[in-house]
Amino acid sequence: MAVYTNVADDELAHFLKRYGLGKLLSFKGIAEGVENTNYVIYTETGTHILTLYEKRVRTEDLPFFLNLMEFLAQNGITCPTPIRDVDGNMLQTLAGRPAAVVTFLNGMWIRRPQVEHCTALGATLANLHLVGQKCSLHRNNTLSLSDWRSLYDAFKDEADSIKPGLRTLIEEELHFLENNWPTHLPKGIIHADLFPDNVFFIDQNISGVIDFYFSCYDTLSYDLAICLNAWCFEPDISFNVTKASALLKAYDKVRQIEPAELYSLPIMARGAALRFLLTRVYDWLNTSETAFVARKDPEEYIRKLRFHQTVDDIKAYGFDT
Amino acid sequence: MAVYTNVADDELAHFLKRYGLGKLLSFKGIAEGVENTNYVIYTETGTHILTLYEKRVRTEDLPFFLNLMEFLAQNGITCPTPIRDVDGNMLQTLAGRPAAVVTFLNGMWIRRPQVEHCTALGATLANLHLVGQKCSLHRNNTLSLSDWRSLYDAFKDEADSIKPGLRTLIEEELHFLENNWPTHLPKGIIHADLFPDNVFFIDQNISGVIDFYFSCYDTLSYDLAICLNAWCFEPDISFNVTKASALLKAYDKVRQIEPAELYSLPIMARGAALRFLLTRVYDWLNTSETAFVARKDPEEYIRKLRFHQTVDDIKAYGFDT
Repeated sequence: MAVYTNVADDELAHFLKRYGLGKLLSFKGIAEGVENTNYVIYTETGTHILTLYEKRVRTEDLPFFLNLMEFLAQNGITCPTPIRDVDGNMLQTLAGRPAAVVTFLNGMWIRRPQVEHCTALGATLANLHLVGQKCSLHRNNTLSLSDWRSLYDAFKDEADSIKPGLRTLIEEELHFLENNWPTHLPKGIIHADLFPDNVFFIDQNISGVIDFYFSCYDTLSYDLAICLNAWCFEPDISFNVTKASALLKAYDKVRQIEPAELYSLPIMARGAALRFLLTRVYDWLNTSETAFVARKDPEEYIRKLRFHQTVDDIKAYGFDT
Repeated sequence: MAVYTNVADDELAHFLKRYGLGKLLSFKGIAEGVENTNYVIYTETGTHILTLYEKRVRTEDLPFFLNLMEFLAQNGITCPTPIRDVDGNMLQTLAGRPAAVVTFLNGMWIRRPQVEHCTALGATLANLHLVGQKCSLHRNNTLSLSDWRSLYDAFKDEADSIKPGLRTLIEEELHFLENNWPTHLPKGIIHADLFPDNVFFIDQNISGVIDFYFSCYDTLSYDLAICLNAWCFEPDISFNVTKASALLKAYDKVRQIEPAELYSLPIMARGAALRFLLTRVYDWLNTSETAFVARKDPEEYIRKLRFHQTVDDIKAYGFDT
């Protein structure tokens, strides 16, 4: 939620001459996206978003992200669509940063998702997975199981300063997942960060999916597990089985969940919980309390992980085979 | 440049039902305004700005500011115009804060103002003063000469920690101004904070004036002096007499500057420089280095004050009587 890079009016007006968007009328830095700087820009032809990519996004990954968004948009997934400049480029440089202009999407993210939002999410996620399977773009997940241990190693000596027993919890969970992680499930393009703030709604309908900067080629049901964690717990971290049921059934209706995917969903959910627990602990220990970016409490994902550790049947998620 | 108060989607949709603006389609927190939280809101009927007033603005002053903006807009000064709700109110409450919805203005503020921008500014400022004189609203300046000494007293023992000699500089300047401040110059509504970031341009034309949250009833030429300081120095704090000349001549063409105003302009400029020096020093000493809000270096206004101390004739500002 920050504007890290300031852009001057004349600099932006000059930059936009590369795009056929007409004269620049106004622009505002917006508090959206933790990783990058975003501006809403108003030109004679309409409203767009300008993104300046900050250091946390690897420049070599940007062509994948931008091409993926273009591919998805062309195949019926409403997402920010990169605008090509006069030379056909989607990626430019502005204020010393890689920069792209994308379409503006109406809609708002839902602070308190209800069952109907989980239904809409399930269908959209399944659609995204189906469309992604037609896509030849490839990017490895840089936050997959094999990366979790090195992330853990970087902070393990300090883990218990956050909560006594956290080191043992993570150590044992890593050990379990390394020995039980399924490797032969269907794979494809996943969003990998489909939290409520990345899904725009108008009324009960999804009007767009944003922020593809973690997307990659990985296990499809891992994406579903990320959503279970991000959408189906109440603020007190009690699990809402009605929401989970709605999410899974709506997904299954569009892309049938295979038996092996169903069977291993609790493990996927544990992995998804651990992945966000690890990055939150890392950020907690490496971000000062007064920093610009809000730290997210790791406790939330400790409790989500513990919940999934108790699940031994998909019925706990409200899905009956 | 911050979003201090978060508003939820459903809370905002409910709030907007009071206004005849149609369904809420999208909203974004914007990095604009140091004092308040601002959102751009998109509804079926267009784009507006929602402002939540934070603690630095006194709630009892809000009716003055909102009524003034409405009056100015109705009298040809393009500025954010408060939208009245179904009951005719301009001021509401949202997320526990006083809140108002105002019109959205196209245009951008100029990071590097040129002579032609100073010309446009002069004419607009004079127009604002003329229109303001027809306005019966009243608010005392809470940052006028009589308030400067108590501001100074609050930090005087620490002043030299910023720069050796600063305490003496301010002490002597306060003494001089208290003994020489002209009290019989024309008064009226002034903006009192007309820095470049509060004036929107499209090309060389002013498309709007924003941020009236310091405006008050005070000496008109003091407003002109604030602009001389804010618009007519180069980044190295050399004084650009061509810009000053353009500003004063354009102002004078719309509202003739009286001889007494001209004669005392160097004193007004010293006062204007001291006023911003005082608040910058205060903020510098009372804002932690890592805080959300950028501190502004007091050095800039030390040097501006010293420049005006050397001026004994209006010719130094490029204005020939």
